[in-house]
Amino acid sequence: MQKFTSVQDVANIDELVNEALHLKQNPYKYKQLGENKTLGLIFLNPSLRTRLSTQKAALNLGMNVMVMNLDKEGWALETQEGAIMNGTTVEHIKEAAAVMGEYCDILGIRSFPKLQNRDEDYNEELLQQFIDYAGIPIVSLESATRHPLQSLADLVTITEKKPAGKKPKVVLTWAPHVKPIPQCVANSFAEWMGQANVELVITHPKGYDLAEEFTQNATVTTNQDEALKDADFVYVKNWSSYIDYGKVLTEGEGWMMNNEKLALTNNAKVMHCLPVRRNVELSDEILDGSNSLVLQQANNRTYAAQAVLKRILETL
Amino acid sequence: MQKFTSVQDVANIDELVNEALHLKQNPYKYKQLGENKTLGLIFLNPSLRTRLSTQKAALNLGMNVMVMNLDKEGWALETQEGAIMNGTTVEHIKEAAAVMGEYCDILGIRSFPKLQNRDEDYNEELLQQFIDYAGIPIVSLESATRHPLQSLADLVTITEKKPAGKKPKVVLTWAPHVKPIPQCVANSFAEWMGQANVELVITHPKGYDLAEEFTQNATVTTNQDEALKDADFVYVKNWSSYIDYGKVLTEGEGWMMNNEKLALTNNAKVMHCLPVRRNVELSDEILDGSNSLVLQQANNRTYAAQAVLKRILETL
Amino acid sequence: MQKFTSVQDVANIDELVNEALHLKQNPYKYKQLGENKTLGLIFLNPSLRTRLSTQKAALNLGMNVMVMNLDKEGWALETQEGAIMNGTTVEHIKEAAAVMGEYCDILGIRSFPKLQNRDEDYNEELLQQFIDYAGIPIVSLESATRHPLQSLADLVTITEKKPAGKKPKVVLTWAPHVKPIPQCVANSFAEWMGQANVELVITHPKGYDLAEEFTQNATVTTNQDEALKDADFVYVKNWSSYIDYGKVLTEGEGWMMNNEKLALTNNAKVMHCLPVRRNVELSDEILDGSNSLVLQQANNRTYAAQAVLKRILETL
Repeated sequence: MQKFTSVQDVANIDELVNEALHLKQNPYKYKQLGENKTLGLIFLNPSLRTRLSTQKAALNLGMNVMVMNLDKEGWALETQEGAIMNGTTVEHIKEAAAVMGEYCDILGIRSFPKLQNRDEDYNEELLQQFIDYAGIPIVSLESATRHPLQSLADLVTITEKKPAGKKPKVVLTWAPHVKPIPQCVANSFAEWMGQANVELVITHPKGYDLAEEFTQNATVTTNQDEALKDADFVYVKNWSSYIDYGKVLTEGEGWMMNNEKLALTNNAKVMHCLPVRRNVELSDEILDGSNSLVLQQANNRTYAAQAVLKRILETL
Repeated sequence: MQKFTSVQDVANIDELVNEALHLKQNPYKYKQLGENKTLGLIFLNPSLRTRLSTQKAALNLGMNVMVMNLDKEGWALETQEGAIMNGTTVEHIKEAAAVMGEYCDILGIRSFPKLQNRDEDYNEELLQQFIDYAGIPIVSLESATRHPLQSLADLVTITEKKPAGKKPKVVLTWAPHVKPIPQCVANSFAEWMGQANVELVITHPKGYDLAEEFTQNATVTTNQDEALKDADFVYVKNWSSYIDYGKVLTEGEGWMMNNEKLALTNNAKVMHCLPVRRNVELSDEILDGSNSLVLQQANNRTYAAQAVLKRILETL
Repeated sequence: MQKFTSVQDVANIDELVNEALHLKQNPYKYKQLGENKTLGLIFLNPSLRTRLSTQKAALNLGMNVMVMNLDKEGWALETQEGAIMNGTTVEHIKEAAAVMGEYCDILGIRSFPKLQNRDEDYNEELLQQFIDYAGIPIVSLESATRHPLQSLADLVTITEKKPAGKKPKVVLTWAPHVKPIPQCVANSFAEWMGQANVELVITHPKGYDLAEEFTQNATVTTNQDEALKDADFVYVKNWSSYIDYGKVLTEGEGWMMNNEKLALTNNAKVMHCLPVRRNVELSDEILDGSNSLVLQQANNRTYAAQAVLKRILETL
């Protein structure tokens, strides 16, 4: 693997899931692989699970890790080609990325969309420029439009918990939130489930359709109750509108996932990428109950990252 | 040891002090013990000594360390049970603690009291919730009401420097400061010395009595001169009022520790947990003189933390 | 080597350059040397290259690294002898430096000048106090007046790229910028090149003379075109005035390095310490062209730091 920024970078997702499951059983088996290799982790936005799980994954593989909070410890990057840099940006991404590429063997990058201009966000300019200029493999730690390490961890979790002898029904349901949230987790989840051996249904209020490129293998409905029927897994997530870009169109009354809705399902396992707004997106009763998989998902983030790093290390 | 949040978590403090002294002589002897174990350090407040000494202690034991400055790199945590999280808190401590518990083997946590509501601070809600939800051993790196790693390092220092064949007289004296300071260092010191083989005297201006639970084995007086008489160790520390909670009741003129007061003692060694306000709490002449133990105390922080981590690692 | 704060701390710069080149070929050869040794890195100002390259250098030598962003994770330090600390400074540098000296084996420190009072900056008070109070070897990661790790990396780069059988002509040219910049990179470069086997020419607009102590072995001219003639290396850098201290005296129209000026040289290699303001200090055409050495310089920062750390480790 030369980079990991979307499901398109994965030759065979089943093999990658199995690799993650194998590493979960044998986390330190490949500690020689990362010896004298350095993972740089660049954050332009806060991170808890992603930072800790990726750091852990790299340590399990014997790598060194250098963390750089560019927003807090660094300075503003210029991304415009040909810019006359007489303003507030201190360094061009051409130099910043290339220099980090000199010091590291693999770079992980997290940045969020601004949710103001759809084309700008969906162009993935920052991520693409890191790919273009760093000169080393890039791992997305969440970008403007995707969160592939989360989706891989989600697929690992579903693989562990799926009912035997049956193609599971997986429902991605929109949930309320208090502010505009990126589409990236939903996009990635749809994209990965679309490649996996599951039946995928997406449900959301009118106006919350995701970009078509991500939902081609999904059934989409605005009827949440119908969607939840017989579900084996329910993935709960808020996102802001893609069509009326970055906007919150409804408070979403009645869309919060709770036990009443759970009763419509096939005693579904309930998933969320975290952080979760309790009693807004998901009820306490579910999060504190036995159907919740949120901690297993978080735990599997380590092995998802470790599988990806292992594959990349093997190419170096 | 399953957790380390107060002297009550220690079965035998003499043995723990001896362990620390043993580790000071043999810092790398147990480097296998921490192999493939991860210490998470969570800071909700700034830290210099605590962070560096605990990190050093963990590295000496061969552990990996992941530092998380939650106030700067993370987000606001919800601590209320049943909260409808439609406000500014982004993640409930239930998930945050449990997730960090998934990635780490031991968690250290630092947080300060707000000094506004005594019950709230003395309930130790944040620390208790980390204990309840993390699912792994918790080490207090200073909490609202206690600073046990500091106290252990202090007891190690006193053990190294105490006069032979004599139960030492240890005086904890209040000192002036420019702003309201938590009671935690004083509480912990009183609590630990109360369990140690020393004669403990506490002196402070009227209104600065510590909570009774910490001072049961101490003589308390508002007469500093009398307290200092024949002291072998003088521990200097400011704290705000516990009774009139969080308030500064006096500028404390005449309470600063200096050579004139030192003359009242048995050529006492002078201690302070640092950071110290020079010429406000303690005079330059003492800090720059041969009676000061402040650097030895800081150095012993490493071995105090290492003894605690070693004991916890042995139970994993 | 007991400390590394300027070229004066280096007994033989050729040997140190050769050590760096040797380490570049054999980065992990001395991984035993740093075992159980800890490098503390203290930043009072943001850092990208310096932090990552020094961290990498230490890891290559098997050291542990603890990073402390004192400005963000710590607190304000008092530097005045005898201060009554009843203001905003929380800890005296005497304690802070000594305590970090207890936890580390080598300390690296970065701080910038304030550019307000020349004597204050050129006294190097902060760096000197760390040397005085830390009790362990100090490495400057850039100070008020010098950036010696950068200069060593620059000399390594020049050594790699210099034309055979000829003493190279090296030109340090002032370049425009949008705000007042310290003199430290220019000072150090002049100081190091003055000791190296090169012909050094410095060119800048009127009023930008560097302090004489740094430029004794250089030819200085305000005629940039004349300076650039037949140059083998052109080092581009802005600095504010030393004479009219910290001031920007001119916008520097016509001083930006570009291909037209490059034509005056002996097809010179172009250098800059980064971060660079594109199309203000240096044109895109040069930075994106084959004459630029800026990435090699950044890469050599690792081996410069590693050579210095190795020499210090050998004395511990």
